[in-house]
Amino acid sequence: MEKETARIEAFSDGVFAIAITLLILEIKVPPAGTADLATQLIKQWPSYVSFVISFAFIGIMWINHHRLFTQIRRSDNTLMLLNLLLLLGVCVVPYPTAVLAQHLSGPDQRPAAVLYQGTYFAIAIFFNLLWGYARKRGMVEKTSESALRISVQYGVGPFSYLVCLLLVWISIPASLLLNVVLAVFYALPPQHATTVVKGKAKAFES
Amino acid sequence: MEKETARIEAFSDGVFAIAITLLILEIKVPPAGTADLATQLIKQWPSYVSFVISFAFIGIMWINHHRLFTQIRRSDNTLMLLNLLLLLGVCVVPYPTAVLAQHLSGPDQRPAAVLYQGTYFAIAIFFNLLWGYARKRGMVEKTSESALRISVQYGVGPFSYLVCLLLVWISIPASLLLNVVLAVFYALPPQHATTVVKGKAKAFES
Amino acid sequence: MEKETARIEAFSDGVFAIAITLLILEIKVPPAGTADLATQLIKQWPSYVSFVISFAFIGIMWINHHRLFTQIRRSDNTLMLLNLLLLLGVCVVPYPTAVLAQHLSGPDQRPAAVLYQGTYFAIAIFFNLLWGYARKRGMVEKTSESALRISVQYGVGPFSYLVCLLLVWISIPASLLLNVVLAVFYALPPQHATTVVKGKAKAFES
Amino acid sequence: MEKETARIEAFSDGVFAIAITLLILEIKVPPAGTADLATQLIKQWPSYVSFVISFAFIGIMWINHHRLFTQIRRSDNTLMLLNLLLLLGVCVVPYPTAVLAQHLSGPDQRPAAVLYQGTYFAIAIFFNLLWGYARKRGMVEKTSESALRISVQYGVGPFSYLVCLLLVWISIPASLLLNVVLAVFYALPPQHATTVVKGKAKAFES
Repeated sequence: MEKETARIEAFSDGVFAIAITLLILEIKVPPAGTADLATQLIKQWPSYVSFVISFAFIGIMWINHHRLFTQIRRSDNTLMLLNLLLLLGVCVVPYPTAVLAQHLSGPDQRPAAVLYQGTYFAIAIFFNLLWGYARKRGMVEKTSESALRISVQYGVGPFSYLVCLLLVWISIPASLLLNVVLAVFYALPPQHATTVVKGKAKAFES
Repeated sequence: MEKETARIEAFSDGVFAIAITLLILEIKVPPAGTADLATQLIKQWPSYVSFVISFAFIGIMWINHHRLFTQIRRSDNTLMLLNLLLLLGVCVVPYPTAVLAQHLSGPDQRPAAVLYQGTYFAIAIFFNLLWGYARKRGMVEKTSESALRISVQYGVGPFSYLVCLLLVWISIPASLLLNVVLAVFYALPPQHATTVVKGKAKAFES
Repeated sequence: MEKETARIEAFSDGVFAIAITLLILEIKVPPAGTADLATQLIKQWPSYVSFVISFAFIGIMWINHHRLFTQIRRSDNTLMLLNLLLLLGVCVVPYPTAVLAQHLSGPDQRPAAVLYQGTYFAIAIFFNLLWGYARKRGMVEKTSESALRISVQYGVGPFSYLVCLLLVWISIPASLLLNVVLAVFYALPPQHATTVVKGKAKAFES
Repeated sequence: MEKETARIEAFSDGVFAIAITLLILEIKVPPAGTADLATQLIKQWPSYVSFVISFAFIGIMWINHHRLFTQIRRSDNTLMLLNLLLLLGVCVVPYPTAVLAQHLSGPDQRPAAVLYQGTYFAIAIFFNLLWGYARKRGMVEKTSESALRISVQYGVGPFSYLVCLLLVWISIPASLLLNVVLAVFYALPPQHATTVVKGKAKAFES
């Protein structure tokens, strides 16, 4: 059974590695002889920002996937399908990022931001479906401290990204800022992240 | 010998992972300043549908490849060549899918559907060649319950996809629908799938 | 030390898998509404032929690389650099293939064929450099029957591909035919291939 | 814990393998029927040179990454993030190389060279951040001879690439030449490289 999880991880690693490397193909080389190269390179800053953000997001999703599978010990057909669903989300990321990069400064920033935040909302749900299934089927040691922390950290994901999505109609910059904050939150190891969640919970209570 | 199968699987995983990730490159970002972005994004729905279908097919083929190789214990030169033939089929998939996506609503839907269903018919044959060879050469435990189930599930493949292909001349929607049904059938684990096959066999008898 | 070879193989597998999968990107979907789709698809046959040939070549090179590394037990810095040189050859293959596919029926078939056969000549040399180094440094069991067979099969490579290259100035079809024959020869397991070599040697003697 | 490093290496190998293989996509096939093919192929030499240089650089970075991880025994969240930062640098390489290739012979060679050398300067810093962190956290056996040699070889990296970057304002050919010398230096195994460093130190002293 060990071998099965190993091959799921290998396949997923491949998908993550390719998705993250394809991002550079979007940045086009300024053509020779049109204008001053330095100026042209500087004018391309939205492409660079968009590249770095997508890179960070896919990288952080890889770290999270990695964390899940250090806890998951067995695999079955449904787990493979749920993992595929998650990978579908990962593969899609470059598209809404490119749409956002191209339309952020124009009149169509709202639909672009909805597409972008909607994608993250869906991925947060897919992460929870995978993790919830693995826990329910006893593929994870339920009493493990790390597993509990992952459950807390992931449990708040869909709600947080829904807030991101709804914020688009109030303030697009605020919505994107919250998205970056959430990325940092998921880059943290679960033990720190749960401390943040508990701190917030206390703040709500008081 | 164990090591040889491991490297075939690693190489195949790479090919599957890349083929599935390259699919997103086909969806183009709507250019800024031409029309309302939301409308443009919605008008691109055939690209999304085509992306999801191809993703699901390649993903399900990966799961099936994975299943085969949990049963196959040894490898030789011919097995590697037959595996390459199967991977050729996998790598080709994005092309007929793109052709179908672009021509499904136009006057040329028949040749597009023939190309599409013909590809799946060929892949079904390649899967059976690989599996049949591995069984004949004793690379699989013949008495294993799982191996027998795989044989039943795969055995019906070429015939079913031939029906898909021939249906194109009668009804293209019916042909595509049967294709989706077959995808679900191959996403099922072999034990459930064989139950379906036996159920159908009984229905025919009565 | 075992681990080092494992990672070289993993990296090489990645490069082979990507090179072989990128080939499909070269086949373009015929645009809708220009002409009868079936006719257009049939007219694209040179692209299909070129795709299948490149796929077979890269696949067969992967099998050969795999064979080498089942014999190579250790690794060092120079071996890694020689392996990189070989991978450079593999990565380049799609380019001369595309050039040949586009110019085979035109007036420029000679330079296209020179580029194509020259690439294979270089790769045959790179394979021998890697193998020769590994043998010289005792990374391979010299007395092993399989290792000896690989030495014979690879030893004839550079000479054979040089013949292919020179044939371009006499007859391009003959040159390409010899290339396909050589591909089949390298797809054979070393024990059969050496029999072929010995057979030819005898034929020369008599 | 072993398993964690294994998956970081697998993911990194994937990224390196894809980045190195995507390079060929930049070389375009000369269109049929415009001019003599042989002339056109020869005129594309800057693309070939740029391809070989990028290939060598990414390949040498892979060898160096490989060396680091034969020394690193454990992993944590920060190490994964620092490794991602390094991979970001690797993924970016094709872009400044393409910019340099297109502008090296034109009036904009200075900004192109700054972008190019700046990228290598950043990557040299990222390598040291990763290695420094792993050493500080005791993930590497500090007394190991190999680890000490890596520290010396990498320690001189940021300074050397800063010299490369600053040389751009004095002489672009000299700057690029130093870059190639540094690539050869990092292609050497650490024991030879440290001898070079010590030799230079002595030369300075005398």
